[in-house]
Amino acid sequence: MRKEMFEHEITLLRDTFRRLLRRHARTNLSKLIQKTHPADLSVIFRYFSDEEQEQVFALMPLDESTGEFLSELDESTLSELLEEEESDRIALIVRESNSNDQGTILNALSEEKTQSILELLRQDEQEELEEILAYPEDSAGSLMSTDFFALRQNTKSHDAIKTLQDQDEAEMVFYLYITDDDERLVGVISLRTLAITPPNTLLSDIMMKSVHMVRAETDQEDVAQIVAQYNYLAVPVVDSDMRLLGIVTVDDVVDVIREEATEDFLKMAGAGKDREILHKSSWENAKARLPWLFASWLGGIVAATVIGAYEHVLQSTIALAAFIPVIMGMGGNIGTQSSTIIVRGIATGRVDFGSEFKLIFKEITVGLLLGGLYGLLLGIFAELKFIDAPPFLGLVVGLSIGLSMLIATAVGTMIPLFLRKLDIDPAIATGPFVTTSVDIVGVLLYFVIATSFLNL
Amino acid sequence: MRKEMFEHEITLLRDTFRRLLRRHARTNLSKLIQKTHPADLSVIFRYFSDEEQEQVFALMPLDESTGEFLSELDESTLSELLEEEESDRIALIVRESNSNDQGTILNALSEEKTQSILELLRQDEQEELEEILAYPEDSAGSLMSTDFFALRQNTKSHDAIKTLQDQDEAEMVFYLYITDDDERLVGVISLRTLAITPPNTLLSDIMMKSVHMVRAETDQEDVAQIVAQYNYLAVPVVDSDMRLLGIVTVDDVVDVIREEATEDFLKMAGAGKDREILHKSSWENAKARLPWLFASWLGGIVAATVIGAYEHVLQSTIALAAFIPVIMGMGGNIGTQSSTIIVRGIATGRVDFGSEFKLIFKEITVGLLLGGLYGLLLGIFAELKFIDAPPFLGLVVGLSIGLSMLIATAVGTMIPLFLRKLDIDPAIATGPFVTTSVDIVGVLLYFVIATSFLNL
Repeated sequence: MRKEMFEHEITLLRDTFRRLLRRHARTNLSKLIQKTHPADLSVIFRYFSDEEQEQVFALMPLDESTGEFLSELDESTLSELLEEEESDRIALIVRESNSNDQGTILNALSEEKTQSILELLRQDEQEELEEILAYPEDSAGSLMSTDFFALRQNTKSHDAIKTLQDQDEAEMVFYLYITDDDERLVGVISLRTLAITPPNTLLSDIMMKSVHMVRAETDQEDVAQIVAQYNYLAVPVVDSDMRLLGIVTVDDVVDVIREEATEDFLKMAGAGKDREILHKSSWENAKARLPWLFASWLGGIVAATVIGAYEHVLQSTIALAAFIPVIMGMGGNIGTQSSTIIVRGIATGRVDFGSEFKLIFKEITVGLLLGGLYGLLLGIFAELKFIDAPPFLGLVVGLSIGLSMLIATAVGTMIPLFLRKLDIDPAIATGPFVTTSVDIVGVLLYFVIATSFLNL
Repeated sequence: MRKEMFEHEITLLRDTFRRLLRRHARTNLSKLIQKTHPADLSVIFRYFSDEEQEQVFALMPLDESTGEFLSELDESTLSELLEEEESDRIALIVRESNSNDQGTILNALSEEKTQSILELLRQDEQEELEEILAYPEDSAGSLMSTDFFALRQNTKSHDAIKTLQDQDEAEMVFYLYITDDDERLVGVISLRTLAITPPNTLLSDIMMKSVHMVRAETDQEDVAQIVAQYNYLAVPVVDSDMRLLGIVTVDDVVDVIREEATEDFLKMAGAGKDREILHKSSWENAKARLPWLFASWLGGIVAATVIGAYEHVLQSTIALAAFIPVIMGMGGNIGTQSSTIIVRGIATGRVDFGSEFKLIFKEITVGLLLGGLYGLLLGIFAELKFIDAPPFLGLVVGLSIGLSMLIATAVGTMIPLFLRKLDIDPAIATGPFVTTSVDIVGVLLYFVIATSFLNL
């Protein structure tokens, strides 16, 4: 219900924009832009042609909301839009944006463009931005906001409240971070605790001394894990001397979690890891998908070679060929199920360390149950369908499918567990490994069983 | 780096618990429990045997932190643990828990057990809980917390601040919600705005009148979408008369996003949608995975029938059988890539309404590029490998793989888009539909092409 309402609102907004664009009603467009939430603007932006996008962007004010709008866009849209824009205007927008959006905007630009924008800013602004840009992509440093609220531990609580009220930036204030005289992070106080503390209390007396913190180089996925597990609203980011550099807030973590899930999906399907693949050209899209298909092509070549080697078996019992698809398909599917369950279990922390053997045993039991069932069904079908074929055909086919499903669950479970041990991302490698190896093993097994049973 | 540190801490904590458990050091265990964050406790709980779990749980205090711990457990662990526990003790814990955790705890219990616990509570507590339990699973109502902060619009700002400071519940206060005399939600004020407003201002003068709100029946996925899009910390939940019922906070949304991603993964692999499948028995696990495998089995039967019908073709050119696996594999893989990209694009909102034809066209171009490339490669391989086979074998094989990859991209793109149109979850239906239909079409195409080219 809600979803349709939302879609309806967005459609309405988009149509209003389009009507105004057709009429070149610049004043009305400006007004509508002011009234629209930056997040909504970024959604309807997807529906505009390049030309419409430029027209709307040209009318946007030079303030924080435009920075917010830009940072909500998909990276590819953002790059295209800004590469066409004058550096002066971008510099003015960057200057007004919050530190988080500044990073997103500049990271989407080419090196030269970024440099030309930095040169338009004041020395201190430049230095601050250069620092933000120096952190590795997808790290806590590149994700953090430098608009945090920190005070020395010998501050009194009523002074802290006063300082907080005078603060005009730091929109997302949840915690007050406490530092020592060397600016090292030593504690944290929730704003609630601060509000109910007697005025003359020293912050060091009410602060929590054990603070979960991350380093600027920490991977954003690990930051997300901490925020999700402890229900934090923000995590402080420190340098190697424990000096507070910034905070990663929960709203950015929400985006990280969604992006990482998308990347895992694409990786498992062997479609690269570019979450914006939809916005890329067919050519780039094809390039991202080529490697896994090559792995699968090689697997196919091996399978063809295996079958070629058993040509004499096929020649004498041609009906065997009919069951190649179902043996491969069932093995591949149940193997993919196993590996998906394990890969996702690793990502959500449900696969614990030390329980590997239990997991493998459990999956093999599943393989035995389902392999037995479908082997039986297929064996019966084979007997009924190919009455002219040798009497053992049903047995061969049933046994092969059962065994290949059993092996597929074992392989599908073990490969991701093994990859994790080697510190390789299970998601990226599971897809090609599992399906390709299961295909080859399945076909080989089939012909080995056929050869021995049919006495050829 | 961070991840290992985290794992190391958890391992240390687990070993300490184990050591104390072996020594039956109850006092030390109690102290350790008090000192451990509920979220950490829930993680190490996974490593305990059933007996150890019961021992640790028995030592937990009857307070809010135990409620928090319970609600962080996986549902299956939670159910097992509580079904063994006395209703009295659960009732005492539920009484102390926040409304959000109360719902989670009671929802994990059997109807009888829930009833026996409700009967132990006061009349007003009972009614409140029954209301929470009445909302559909995975709805905003079942996810919301009733500990929110709301005031009438004719309140003055300094009274609002005073009320806030006296509030001892409502830990997650981010916004002050404003209601009219009929308790209908009419506005919202951020705590920052409140803090910097002159003391005698009426709340109605500073409130934002346009509030994003959801209904209690709204699906949690839609709530998550709103929170993620607008970077909210909480969304108000209202009934049909716009009366404020509760709030859904961002920390719960983080959990929803992770759970929904896991469910989508499992659905696409045809492994049910039970995100706790790892904790289930092999039997339940097999049951969840059976349906898709049946679809795929049926597809295999159809493929076998198709091949059976072309037995005479195979008989004359036995080498054709060798390429059945690669034709199916490549078609299936590229089709899965296409459908994964589209399904995930729909989930993250990157597939816009009205752009369907552009998407299909783009994917078909990818199919043409990759199908052309791999068709050529396979054609050459077939010619070189099977020199004795008819001269057209390479052409037949190459053309078939190219065409089946082309068709697979089209099918992989269109099926999820079509399912969305019909309001069926694309994730649940894409896996079986795409792979099965691509398999059958691929095999059929192959033999049709072979028949016409090899002039049989």
